[in-house]
Amino acid sequence: MERKVVLEIIEAGMYAPSAGNEQAWQFVVLEGEPFAEYLAINGNAPKTAPMGVLVCMDRQAEKYKEMNTAMMDCSAAVQNMLLEAHEKGLGALWTAVFEGAKGKVRELLNLPAHVEPFACVLVGRPKKRDGGIPARFDGSKIHYGKWGAKN
Amino acid sequence: MERKVVLEIIEAGMYAPSAGNEQAWQFVVLEGEPFAEYLAINGNAPKTAPMGVLVCMDRQAEKYKEMNTAMMDCSAAVQNMLLEAHEKGLGALWTAVFEGAKGKVRELLNLPAHVEPFACVLVGRPKKRDGGIPARFDGSKIHYGKWGAKN
Repeated sequence: MERKVVLEIIEAGMYAPSAGNEQAWQFVVLEGEPFAEYLAINGNAPKTAPMGVLVCMDRQAEKYKEMNTAMMDCSAAVQNMLLEAHEKGLGALWTAVFEGAKGKVRELLNLPAHVEPFACVLVGRPKKRDGGIPARFDGSKIHYGKWGAKN
Repeated sequence: MERKVVLEIIEAGMYAPSAGNEQAWQFVVLEGEPFAEYLAINGNAPKTAPMGVLVCMDRQAEKYKEMNTAMMDCSAAVQNMLLEAHEKGLGALWTAVFEGAKGKVRELLNLPAHVEPFACVLVGRPKKRDGGIPARFDGSKIHYGKWGAKN
């Protein structure tokens, strides 16, 4: 993947809102051998993606630890990255880093103790675009003024 | 706020990705008196917004509790809602529900035990648009293949 494209996707992530503007995120670009090694450790990802960006929670930058705001920041950043990749005609996928794999991922990438792997955003060129988006609106999950009130 | 607009903002939230497609979110539309009562309990929000949508984590729908995936789902949903509101020319703000206020919010809105208040997305009509967006790209937070590697 061209470096410029990867950086634009990451930049979109950095425009996410964050709690008290803490921006408690870090990004590790994974391609080639480090990417293959990552996938071998945390094997929930389709093996066909050419690269991924590991988004990490920066617990040192996190201002409201009791609320886990670094997770909120990083989730919003990942969502922005997915939208930016889609906008570019690429395919992207949010894949979790499993709790049991975090130690090994940290070791592999030499992450400091305050940097916790959160999700790997896989990016690639789709063979074809999905034909359609299934409707997702679900009125049963919307309440008005009080739980269960439907107007 | 027109109901149609509110529903389109919530619908954008429902198009967020979620862990294993669990869609572990619920939405409570807050206007008028319930909104004022909510703000009195969880007073971190500007009091000038005409309404808010309380996004809640549905712990019953959550498939991977040990990973707190409902928080990821809801964060991605909130980010989509902010973008949709912005697209409509509205202003929107992600405000947290503080831990200490969750019990009272739950009581006020009659939320069942498995529904945990997460964030209130305030929506309003901005008096003016912000003049510019500060640059947010920060290359120091990007690493290549290993922590600290800069190319």
